[in-house]
Amino acid sequence: MAREIGTFDAFAETMECMQGDGILLVAGYPPNPMTIGWGSLGVVWSRPVFQVLVRPTRYTFGLMEEGQAFTVNIFSEKFNKELSICGTHSGKDLDKAAACGFTMVKGEQTTAFYIRESKIHYECRIIHKHLLDPATLDPAIIERYYPLRDFHMVYYGEIAGVYRN
Amino acid sequence: MAREIGTFDAFAETMECMQGDGILLVAGYPPNPMTIGWGSLGVVWSRPVFQVLVRPTRYTFGLMEEGQAFTVNIFSEKFNKELSICGTHSGKDLDKAAACGFTMVKGEQTTAFYIRESKIHYECRIIHKHLLDPATLDPAIIERYYPLRDFHMVYYGEIAGVYRN
Repeated sequence: MAREIGTFDAFAETMECMQGDGILLVAGYPPNPMTIGWGSLGVVWSRPVFQVLVRPTRYTFGLMEEGQAFTVNIFSEKFNKELSICGTHSGKDLDKAAACGFTMVKGEQTTAFYIRESKIHYECRIIHKHLLDPATLDPAIIERYYPLRDFHMVYYGEIAGVYRN
Repeated sequence: MAREIGTFDAFAETMECMQGDGILLVAGYPPNPMTIGWGSLGVVWSRPVFQVLVRPTRYTFGLMEEGQAFTVNIFSEKFNKELSICGTHSGKDLDKAAACGFTMVKGEQTTAFYIRESKIHYECRIIHKHLLDPATLDPAIIERYYPLRDFHMVYYGEIAGVYRN
């Protein structure tokens, strides 16, 4: 059972997992998990917000654009094999949720699905997005992360609920 | 003395103060404090980032554009009087730091100044900014926060240091 917790209660765990590739963003139907290593949490427009980045070249991009919702799923280390599958394959070629043996569950608050095997999940509705503009981005960042100029779309997800599973 | 702490150690305190109008953004020289109620913390481009929002109509906007650095200063409730001065005056008309009796100190890591009387401060260098685009923003947010269409600039500050003062 998913038990609701405070919006920011899992921040420390979330940042820790983020630095260890332990986070899956899920969007679309059939729901597709994608590994993310970057993200922010805070308050914008007086709403709790989780910001995530997706390159327009990714399979997940179309799912985000279509569904306007996503979940962020935090994993413990014992799922390293599954996280590795999600980090090295595209949903274009593989049903990653099935390959990982994940149980995909319809969100409590959003249309996006979450992964029952995650320890914590955030449910988010997209309220804003912006494509990174190289004109206002540190040149060292462009050189390091965007040699192909495939700049990320930044999605602002209003956090509708946070759950410990 | 400012004692350095972990980048995300003060997240809970920061979010709590954010919801209670206890945060001052400082930029420019002479350094000018502005009350902020919104912001996010996380990891983007593998760097710790504090995102803040400033309307281009604000005095602080020019200071951010010029200095490319800022500090975020977290206050305890006993500074309510000072926070109220900062929240109701513009640096155009008043030296708010002097009016509050604040001690402005040059940052340890950045050119921006911080306020010695704050309990915690973040020092940030601007690595990206983007002006909110109404075309990709929830219409309910536009109606509620932007009747004058004075959309915020979102500044991404790379966190160079976090200190308990």
